[in-house]
Amino acid sequence: MSQKYVYTFGAGKADGKADMKLLLGGKGANLAEMSNLGIPVPAGFTISTEICTEYYASGGQYSDEVKKQVKTGVESIEKTMGAKFGDIKNPLLVSVRSGAPASMPGMMDTVLNLGLNDDTVKGIIEQSGNERFGWDSYRRFVQMYGDVVMGMKPESKEEEDPFEVIIDEMKEKKGIQLDTELSADDLRELVSQFKAEIKRRTGKDFPTDPWEQLWGSISAVFGSWNNQRALTYRKLNNIPANWGTAVNVQAMVFGNMGDDCATGVAFTRDPATGNRIFYGEYLINAQGEDVVAGTRTPQPVNEATRSEASQKTLEEIMPAAYKELEAIYQKLEKHYKDMQDIEFTIQKGRLWMLQTRNGKRTAAAAVRIAVEMVEEGLIDKKTAVMRVEPEQLDQLLHPMFDPKADINVIATGLPASPGAATGRIVFHADDAEEWAAKGEDVILVRIETSPEDIGGMNVAKGILTARGGMTSHAAVVARGMGTCCVAGCGAIKLSYKDKTMTVGGNTYNEGDWISLDGSKGSVIEGKVPTIDPVLSGNFGTLMEWADEFRKIQVRTNSDTPHDSEVARNFGAQGIGLCRTEHMFFEGDRIIAVREMILSNDEDGRRKALEKLLPYQRDDFYGIFKAMHDLPVTIRTLDPPLHEFLPHEEDNQKEMADQMGISVEEVKAKVDSLHEFNPMLGHRGCRLGITYPEITEMQARAIIEAACQLKKEGVNVLPEIMIPLIGTKAELANQKKVVVETATKVMEEMGIKVEYMVGTMIEIPRAALTADEVAEEAQFFSFGTNDLTQMTFGYSRDDAGKFLAEYDQKGILPDDPFQTLDQTGVGQLVEIAVKKGRSTKPDLKIGICGEHGGDPRSVGFCHRVGMNYVSCSPYRVPIARLAAAQEAIRTA
Amino acid sequence: MSQKYVYTFGAGKADGKADMKLLLGGKGANLAEMSNLGIPVPAGFTISTEICTEYYASGGQYSDEVKKQVKTGVESIEKTMGAKFGDIKNPLLVSVRSGAPASMPGMMDTVLNLGLNDDTVKGIIEQSGNERFGWDSYRRFVQMYGDVVMGMKPESKEEEDPFEVIIDEMKEKKGIQLDTELSADDLRELVSQFKAEIKRRTGKDFPTDPWEQLWGSISAVFGSWNNQRALTYRKLNNIPANWGTAVNVQAMVFGNMGDDCATGVAFTRDPATGNRIFYGEYLINAQGEDVVAGTRTPQPVNEATRSEASQKTLEEIMPAAYKELEAIYQKLEKHYKDMQDIEFTIQKGRLWMLQTRNGKRTAAAAVRIAVEMVEEGLIDKKTAVMRVEPEQLDQLLHPMFDPKADINVIATGLPASPGAATGRIVFHADDAEEWAAKGEDVILVRIETSPEDIGGMNVAKGILTARGGMTSHAAVVARGMGTCCVAGCGAIKLSYKDKTMTVGGNTYNEGDWISLDGSKGSVIEGKVPTIDPVLSGNFGTLMEWADEFRKIQVRTNSDTPHDSEVARNFGAQGIGLCRTEHMFFEGDRIIAVREMILSNDEDGRRKALEKLLPYQRDDFYGIFKAMHDLPVTIRTLDPPLHEFLPHEEDNQKEMADQMGISVEEVKAKVDSLHEFNPMLGHRGCRLGITYPEITEMQARAIIEAACQLKKEGVNVLPEIMIPLIGTKAELANQKKVVVETATKVMEEMGIKVEYMVGTMIEIPRAALTADEVAEEAQFFSFGTNDLTQMTFGYSRDDAGKFLAEYDQKGILPDDPFQTLDQTGVGQLVEIAVKKGRSTKPDLKIGICGEHGGDPRSVGFCHRVGMNYVSCSPYRVPIARLAAAQEAIRTA
Repeated sequence: MSQKYVYTFGAGKADGKADMKLLLGGKGANLAEMSNLGIPVPAGFTISTEICTEYYASGGQYSDEVKKQVKTGVESIEKTMGAKFGDIKNPLLVSVRSGAPASMPGMMDTVLNLGLNDDTVKGIIEQSGNERFGWDSYRRFVQMYGDVVMGMKPESKEEEDPFEVIIDEMKEKKGIQLDTELSADDLRELVSQFKAEIKRRTGKDFPTDPWEQLWGSISAVFGSWNNQRALTYRKLNNIPANWGTAVNVQAMVFGNMGDDCATGVAFTRDPATGNRIFYGEYLINAQGEDVVAGTRTPQPVNEATRSEASQKTLEEIMPAAYKELEAIYQKLEKHYKDMQDIEFTIQKGRLWMLQTRNGKRTAAAAVRIAVEMVEEGLIDKKTAVMRVEPEQLDQLLHPMFDPKADINVIATGLPASPGAATGRIVFHADDAEEWAAKGEDVILVRIETSPEDIGGMNVAKGILTARGGMTSHAAVVARGMGTCCVAGCGAIKLSYKDKTMTVGGNTYNEGDWISLDGSKGSVIEGKVPTIDPVLSGNFGTLMEWADEFRKIQVRTNSDTPHDSEVARNFGAQGIGLCRTEHMFFEGDRIIAVREMILSNDEDGRRKALEKLLPYQRDDFYGIFKAMHDLPVTIRTLDPPLHEFLPHEEDNQKEMADQMGISVEEVKAKVDSLHEFNPMLGHRGCRLGITYPEITEMQARAIIEAACQLKKEGVNVLPEIMIPLIGTKAELANQKKVVVETATKVMEEMGIKVEYMVGTMIEIPRAALTADEVAEEAQFFSFGTNDLTQMTFGYSRDDAGKFLAEYDQKGILPDDPFQTLDQTGVGQLVEIAVKKGRSTKPDLKIGICGEHGGDPRSVGFCHRVGMNYVSCSPYRVPIARLAAAQEAIRTA
Repeated sequence: MSQKYVYTFGAGKADGKADMKLLLGGKGANLAEMSNLGIPVPAGFTISTEICTEYYASGGQYSDEVKKQVKTGVESIEKTMGAKFGDIKNPLLVSVRSGAPASMPGMMDTVLNLGLNDDTVKGIIEQSGNERFGWDSYRRFVQMYGDVVMGMKPESKEEEDPFEVIIDEMKEKKGIQLDTELSADDLRELVSQFKAEIKRRTGKDFPTDPWEQLWGSISAVFGSWNNQRALTYRKLNNIPANWGTAVNVQAMVFGNMGDDCATGVAFTRDPATGNRIFYGEYLINAQGEDVVAGTRTPQPVNEATRSEASQKTLEEIMPAAYKELEAIYQKLEKHYKDMQDIEFTIQKGRLWMLQTRNGKRTAAAAVRIAVEMVEEGLIDKKTAVMRVEPEQLDQLLHPMFDPKADINVIATGLPASPGAATGRIVFHADDAEEWAAKGEDVILVRIETSPEDIGGMNVAKGILTARGGMTSHAAVVARGMGTCCVAGCGAIKLSYKDKTMTVGGNTYNEGDWISLDGSKGSVIEGKVPTIDPVLSGNFGTLMEWADEFRKIQVRTNSDTPHDSEVARNFGAQGIGLCRTEHMFFEGDRIIAVREMILSNDEDGRRKALEKLLPYQRDDFYGIFKAMHDLPVTIRTLDPPLHEFLPHEEDNQKEMADQMGISVEEVKAKVDSLHEFNPMLGHRGCRLGITYPEITEMQARAIIEAACQLKKEGVNVLPEIMIPLIGTKAELANQKKVVVETATKVMEEMGIKVEYMVGTMIEIPRAALTADEVAEEAQFFSFGTNDLTQMTFGYSRDDAGKFLAEYDQKGILPDDPFQTLDQTGVGQLVEIAVKKGRSTKPDLKIGICGEHGGDPRSVGFCHRVGMNYVSCSPYRVPIARLAAAQEAIRTA
């Protein structure tokens, strides 16, 4: 027997079924499934995706076997529908539609009303008893076929469709406005003009043979798999190019044959809220495209969907068909065990189902539907956990703009930290603090931010930067704070001097209102009302279920007691990264920090560090207390010292005054600390090795705080983490300082606390020599931001200049700073896990780079056997869900 | 039988022999070997290095077995020498000396004349018939023992030795100048005062028991293995700490008993030239230390060594002893088959040999001796090739200062490019060119250099920079040019404005003379005469022999026809790296380059590139011609574009004038191209991907030049190399541009040339995904400078700030920019070689980073199976020799 390429469906049976999506595409598989369920589906057949592959391999040829099976398929439709392809009396008309394994809505081509020609149009007129309908169908077919198959559709959007030009001329000549005003004769005339135009432009006659029409359309649909839109969509949605599309050939049914006809779309539950109501819209005497086009206002299918009293429901107007539809939707939801998005047509009172698929839904709806379906006994917890996209949860955790508001987007940058914010423009962090103190909502607008700006960032409602990527300072800090941020918005030009922001020819001054949508990256003129998120009980339930499956722990990156508490409420199981440098900027501390930097000897540095000690101890005390009973990983000082000195002349003067030295001295120090490539410079453990007294002070602050809390009966679990280790000797050096200090402090305080000393793995060399490094480390934490920078040789602050182009040219599948590059960087992670555990089989391993909150990266971390991921507080639920899903997938 | 720890020698036999160095140390093994050869050696024994290990393990204790064997050893000496340890009549005196497996001259402690006390001194006086000699020997012993064993030696160099203080007091009291003027009574008095001072300071009596003296000295010598000097020396010379030292206890012989006594040192060939003459010095009536101390002028041993007619040779004065010495040196050289460095003492007319070892020699001597010894049939070619340190060859290839000149070193920086240079200070590259054009010798002094300075660097005799490491721009370019360079000399402070250089309180102006020793890193005040290198025929012979063993090819890094020829003369087998960016700065080209950068669209860039095309084509024409029949690897543009724009205000003005635009426009472009971390920024293939027209122009220039030469009958082998590849897709993108351009050019010119397209492997990710990258690459070339930067996360321009400290604290064994880090970076190299060849088994693989000229790194490249190394022209011979040695070692 030959291989099967063509799968028929209709009349209560089918060759295919729902789980054959890869072969039949989503649409074809579901049409088959509906047929098998006895649901009325216009008869048809699906040409499998294998033929798409063959189509490209053979340069557009079909084997005799395929041709034979298609012929048999058409015969099967003819038999079921009681009409004949090309017949003059009772012609069969078909649609030819794409149907890929993954949904690619509107990306590929479709041909409707196929089978019409100057002869068969007469049969349709006779069958429908409607001359205008016949000619309108024919006109639509010629236009669609001309566009899709014969290449009449202009390539650029600026050019007009030649058929529309002809229609417009006709309407002008007749002095009418709407297509619906065209008479049957006008439409017949249009068919004739359309054909002439096709001949003129292509040199080819419009094909009258239905078989030629059919094969032309099938090829056009296969060909559209590789059109530009489809390519782009697949790239964006990670759909493999080699899947190919199936082609569905199906008998036409018409919702526009008269007032006993209708067409509609519906959801088996409310896709916005998840509410368990049948939710849909329909139009009397219309085709599917009319519902979408918006030229007529669709009506609600039922009472539950009705919003105004004047609306006529399908339930009222066609009660029998509605009743049947209701039974079908219930059957479908029960069968698919998921909310369905369905399309139907009623032709002369008879209901036909054209499509069913899992419906798209908001995050809130996704959570509610998943939880309620478990309660209804439709699905189990595992399925519910798999039903919600982790990334979607972000919507639930941040404020958003009122969707009804009119907005004027003036620029778009990177969606660096989600949420929505409205406030008045300020250009300096100091101003932000000052304005906020007076009760003003501010948006901090900067070319880029630096650690000096932390105070202003903290009080701002939103942050907008002209430069920097998804892991720039602004982005990372904003996400940590849960503050909305749009980064790298190159379209805005700033003048700090004039305090102005110019974009698209308009200039905005300090104090002007703008709004930011951090989830989309939009910069919006003026105020936009926001709505705050409310977390439902369903959310909590779903997260609990997720935790039942999850294997890997989820910690948070947090530098303050407040953030720690936020994260704890989101379910964080500890702190994976507490950066100590942010603490250096608060209040008067920066003066002591600068004193230390300006000191030319150890004594001077020690004196300045002594002033910092009580501050740091208090910081750690607060964080340890908030995270009682949970581990807290504290990273010793990481950034290069010049980050703590002012780089703008004004601020240098201010610092000089504050410290009673000359501006020249400040400048000289800034100069002497200047680095060509600070990311690869004197920072991380390299600082601690040069200035062991800094590490010593930090270790002392940590252990003193821990001892104090233990005396107060609070259980603390400090983990001291040394950054930027590249060799075992570096870690040994810093560990010695920490252990000696800790031992001394515990003796002084007369109490012992358990603590660990471990290291970041963020330098490629540390990963490569992890077996050696593990000899000194009690834990590893992957700093995948730096690891990605060094493995790719990309500076995250500069890479924006070419990464956009890389994305466009398809050189990188993802931004490696957002989603861990498993192919390259991932190898180093795997090497380090393997080598680290070869030295210490129980080595605790986690990740504290930005990737710790990215669902795909969380999956990777689970698979390589990490103990935990750590991410910003607002991504903790996302990581929990992603980790649970990965555990389920790999179980 | 117990294990043997003590090995005796003397009287024509010995327990040990020359190849037992690891156990007996170099000195002990050679003393044993000499004994076995029947050469007169004072009897003694060696305590093996195993006891050093035991000494540290046991906290300074010795087992009974060791004590027993030492006792037997002393008895054996007594028997051979006919004297008795501690005997009042005929006491045996011994020396206790260290002797490590590797030579560590002067690093550890020694005790001489051991066995003396108030009783035995009388016996010595009687035996020698010389009272003053007896008391002087005793005085020396107490002083040495006090210093070495009893801790009297001050720890800091500022403090005076307490014994010297006492001697000075005595001389002052007696009104004399020299130690030799002290009488026997004075010396006896000193012994007594010394002992009193020891008691006062240490609370301990000076030990009178010779056995106590002996064990104290043995322990002191073992203990000195870990003194600070020894630790530092071992680190510098890569001597393992766990080797330990042996201890040699040997009967004393005296060259200072009278005028029938003498002591001397000699070499079996001239260590400066390698000339085959017996070359040595001696002193009558003196101890070994007197020859070294320089208080008396040593005399030549023979006619061949004599430089002044007034000198008295040993040959004349003690003909019998000299004759014996001559026989012994010939025997030793024949036996050891290498030039020997020997020490001898003549006691009352009798010759004793105290030491023999392979002699240190200059590079010229090393080459000559190695080649002549093959001619003499003493060694084979393989041995000769192994006899010369590759690194030493550097001495032969560069000018050096006249060793007789008096010099005043005013500062020391990194020895960045070897050689010696004298010239007048200039601070700007433009000035250098101007002055040089007038015939002045100039030294270019800069804070750091940048590609803009290339013209000035090219004409300077030497280059001095205040910042930057061994692989800074200045260092790399200077080495390529063979120009002497001292880099990263932090002690000098420059003012470009005032045109001054300040160092150690002195200010030097433009035009002042300074000199640089690039082999030592010294900056010297004023002019110093230099001598030019002359390459001997022996050099050529040795290199030929090396090539017979060498497996890996040696290419050169060269950007000009001149450098290419220099390298070819040094034996380069092709160009491994031709950087195209240096060419962009010459003459008027920089204007076109800047036009390109300022263009805001592709058209503008193409127009500017068209102007560059003929220049680049000529460059490649010249280089291809110089390297006819050999492969030439050309790297497409690598540095970020801002490197081609001026950063100083003056130069920006100049550029604005030149190009007829405003300074603001120039500044705006410089600002817009600014990067936080340019090393990780928009450079390498990232440029070519953003601006394919640049790659296109370069490919066109390369292929046009190649086609032209082929037409002229010259065989060219171009290899086009894409830099900074991190993913296969990047290489595919650039390769496509190159191949399309090349195909077009060859069609246009009607001729075909063979060429290859390959990639640098310098991004860790490229190494990790080398299997994928190899699908697109025809060759790999490791850019280990960048690979080291990214694997360690060190910026080579900034790392100087902490690498010195890392070296000091023993965190890194070597500067990873000089010697490839085989542990970390080496793993990536091995991974890439393995993965690359898993895709293409015949993939051509080389290295073109600075490490290609480092002997140890060359060894590594050989071992991982590379096809070639490429290095700067002046290091080609070094690489050839290193490669040959590695091939011999691993054969």
